[in-house]
Amino acid sequence: MNNDTSIKDVMDKAIKQARKTMNENVGGPFGAAIIDHEGKIISVASNSVLKDHDPTAHAEINAIRAAGEKLGNHDLTGCTLVTTAYPCPMCLGAIIWSNIKHVIYGCRPKDADEIGFRDDFIYRFIRDEHPDKKVLNLDESFREQCLVLFKEYQEKEKTLY
Amino acid sequence: MNNDTSIKDVMDKAIKQARKTMNENVGGPFGAAIIDHEGKIISVASNSVLKDHDPTAHAEINAIRAAGEKLGNHDLTGCTLVTTAYPCPMCLGAIIWSNIKHVIYGCRPKDADEIGFRDDFIYRFIRDEHPDKKVLNLDESFREQCLVLFKEYQEKEKTLY
Repeated sequence: MNNDTSIKDVMDKAIKQARKTMNENVGGPFGAAIIDHEGKIISVASNSVLKDHDPTAHAEINAIRAAGEKLGNHDLTGCTLVTTAYPCPMCLGAIIWSNIKHVIYGCRPKDADEIGFRDDFIYRFIRDEHPDKKVLNLDESFREQCLVLFKEYQEKEKTLY
Repeated sequence: MNNDTSIKDVMDKAIKQARKTMNENVGGPFGAAIIDHEGKIISVASNSVLKDHDPTAHAEINAIRAAGEKLGNHDLTGCTLVTTAYPCPMCLGAIIWSNIKHVIYGCRPKDADEIGFRDDFIYRFIRDEHPDKKVLNLDESFREQCLVLFKEYQEKEKTLY
């Protein structure tokens, strides 16, 4: 789908959905939609963190979940995600895992920062070689026990191929 | 909870859950558990990407969603996440959004890479100043329309405080 008018229609749907749920206190002012390679809308979703008590329920994550369920496939290759704001690292990770290769976004990370959302802060944490331990401490423990699980997975996969 | 034996019990539960669902082809070999500040287990979960057709259904995300639902709160301040492997960027983002400040992990990113999972590849994409466009293209469009939504949110928040 390269037609700007059509992408505008998709973005309008994402904005409309975000506005609706924001005003119902379901979640923040964020909407997203997923279209397939023909431009057909697969899912439209918005942030539902507050209503669902789910810190992962960002618009992009909800749209990806809904699309996976609708298509019966965790692989969304060929789809495009249209979102009202640049994805946070969580959502960017989800997009890459889903094999979506094209994102069209409205607002910039600094725009979200200006209305109180921490996207930029999480990007800085991930990009920093010595990230702030006040944000998060990551400690390694019981690696050997967990590696046993990984080895079992490798053996299992070997029997499949 | 600083007792190593107790953390080992929690990790064992995460490993056991991961082994079970891995062998049922529910998802990859990953498990996670969330404990509260007293060491009480709030949730235990594993990867269910394949069964749920959900690319976001990593063990950590599933554990966070289950904990949020159980506690009736998207804010998991004071909780610790115990996971069989170092979180991918999606899960790390989810952990920071949830306000969890302590993660105990088993396997390293390179261990996951060695059994075919792309965690490290996604970290490289996020950290790179000029990320590979074959992985993902991000294009800005309709920012002005989306900023209207952000302004509405600001006005709405002003009336609350």
